[in-house]
Amino acid sequence: MKCSRCGAVAQVALPSHHSGFCPDCFRVFFSRQVERAIHQHRMFSQQEPVLVALSGGKDSLSLLRELVLQGYNVTGLHIDLGIPESSPAARAKVEAFCAALGARLAVLDMASEGVPIPAVKACVTRPICSVCGKIKRYYFNKFAMDNGFAAICTGHNLDDEVGRLFANTLRWDVGYLSDQGPSLPGRDGFVAKCRPLYRLSEYETAAYAFLSGIDIHVAPCPYSKGASFTRRKELMNRLEGESPGAKLQFYESFLKNARPHFEAAEDRGGVALAPCERCGYPTSAVVCNVCRIREKLG
Amino acid sequence: MKCSRCGAVAQVALPSHHSGFCPDCFRVFFSRQVERAIHQHRMFSQQEPVLVALSGGKDSLSLLRELVLQGYNVTGLHIDLGIPESSPAARAKVEAFCAALGARLAVLDMASEGVPIPAVKACVTRPICSVCGKIKRYYFNKFAMDNGFAAICTGHNLDDEVGRLFANTLRWDVGYLSDQGPSLPGRDGFVAKCRPLYRLSEYETAAYAFLSGIDIHVAPCPYSKGASFTRRKELMNRLEGESPGAKLQFYESFLKNARPHFEAAEDRGGVALAPCERCGYPTSAVVCNVCRIREKLG
Repeated sequence: MKCSRCGAVAQVALPSHHSGFCPDCFRVFFSRQVERAIHQHRMFSQQEPVLVALSGGKDSLSLLRELVLQGYNVTGLHIDLGIPESSPAARAKVEAFCAALGARLAVLDMASEGVPIPAVKACVTRPICSVCGKIKRYYFNKFAMDNGFAAICTGHNLDDEVGRLFANTLRWDVGYLSDQGPSLPGRDGFVAKCRPLYRLSEYETAAYAFLSGIDIHVAPCPYSKGASFTRRKELMNRLEGESPGAKLQFYESFLKNARPHFEAAEDRGGVALAPCERCGYPTSAVVCNVCRIREKLG
Repeated sequence: MKCSRCGAVAQVALPSHHSGFCPDCFRVFFSRQVERAIHQHRMFSQQEPVLVALSGGKDSLSLLRELVLQGYNVTGLHIDLGIPESSPAARAKVEAFCAALGARLAVLDMASEGVPIPAVKACVTRPICSVCGKIKRYYFNKFAMDNGFAAICTGHNLDDEVGRLFANTLRWDVGYLSDQGPSLPGRDGFVAKCRPLYRLSEYETAAYAFLSGIDIHVAPCPYSKGASFTRRKELMNRLEGESPGAKLQFYESFLKNARPHFEAAEDRGGVALAPCERCGYPTSAVVCNVCRIREKLG
């Protein structure tokens, strides 16, 4: 197979785009998909300061690399969860990567913030993954608001987005469906959220990270267990295997044809948010979840 | 495993309902699902004359049996497609079944109507299954309108409905999504359409037909080939295997949460329908498809 762009030997086959690329042209293809996502959904300009959430995995590091190379005004933010089996290794990868790339990096340490995840795990009854996700989103948002960032970018790829859309669709959860998309505008107390990799599959971000020589953190979190989410991704991959392009088409046609109807309905159940008495960030309770956990641990 | 209703030995396991039944209690369960579908969607009353489309397969014959036993005012309608390899056998099964049940039966012969399917197949370029489906729906509707029936019932089961919903959802085809449901009201030139088996899976209708001793027509149509539709059913069956009840929940939550938003939008593209110049039944052209085929063959 020859590269669809330059005619050299192709090394990355992309049936969903009826293309194959050599390593250099694949990175051009990747850049253009990111550019197209940013422009099409008016995510942010070259000048606006944006924060990139960095776990140390292939998606977030590939995203940071692309945004830096494209000249965006980005800062990385890594959250050190304080899990001895994985956090120090992840943090080291992120720090080395940002230093080599010359990218600004901020690190928030959950132990210093009073919510190290192992201690949190010991004091909550709900599944730790959902609580940990809440804590991370809280600190991403707080840091972005406190420091005047225009948006938070995360490395969610097409498979993440399609898996979530599929799960929300199986339940026809109109509240979540009306909110799902690559770009969520900011509102009172919440900074805008963007997913510039949404057009690129898991395979494509992995290929990009590999071909760009990114040294990624690969160990899975010791607390997570492969769940139904993974199985739903497999189902969508079977569909993609049968009709290449099915995943992107499912997601794009949702955004174009269906989401406007759900947005128009806006029946979010109308949960009223007010500032948390402790930290001032929006919550549906008097004291927000994260402040409650912090107090419980303190 | 014991019968969830009477404690005898269970012979039909229904994980999606956390139940298992002996043959007699399974038929009670089946009846109640049909009753519930009819009442919940206000399909028709005991008195209104309704037509049941009978192919001779497990679904349509099971449906007719149930409606007769429940005392509804039903008439069967079989369409003899004129395919030598399968039509005479299917017709014979339908006729014998209705005679034994004491049910009224009408038969429409596509050869006498000037559209025997083998001849139609030879003169159209489109896939014959889609054309044949159109012809059958045309004659079901025409016969029901001409003879004053309140509704046409078809044997579509939960797997048929969920397969179609999944296909429409993968494309987010809002026009089709706003129309999908177990009960479509009548409108100018179209009689109401009902699917009283929509709560019952393919496995459940097969078990009902078997346990009721119905002698069904099982040979697949020689013109049809297993297509993407079948593969999508398999995907949904994998989901059901992982979380029993997922199919019915997907379908019911669509009807409750999502369809109202699509209906409200009513962006059907607004195709205007007018009576066909030849037969008087609604069409978007001057002469309807079926009349055009009939003229081409005559």
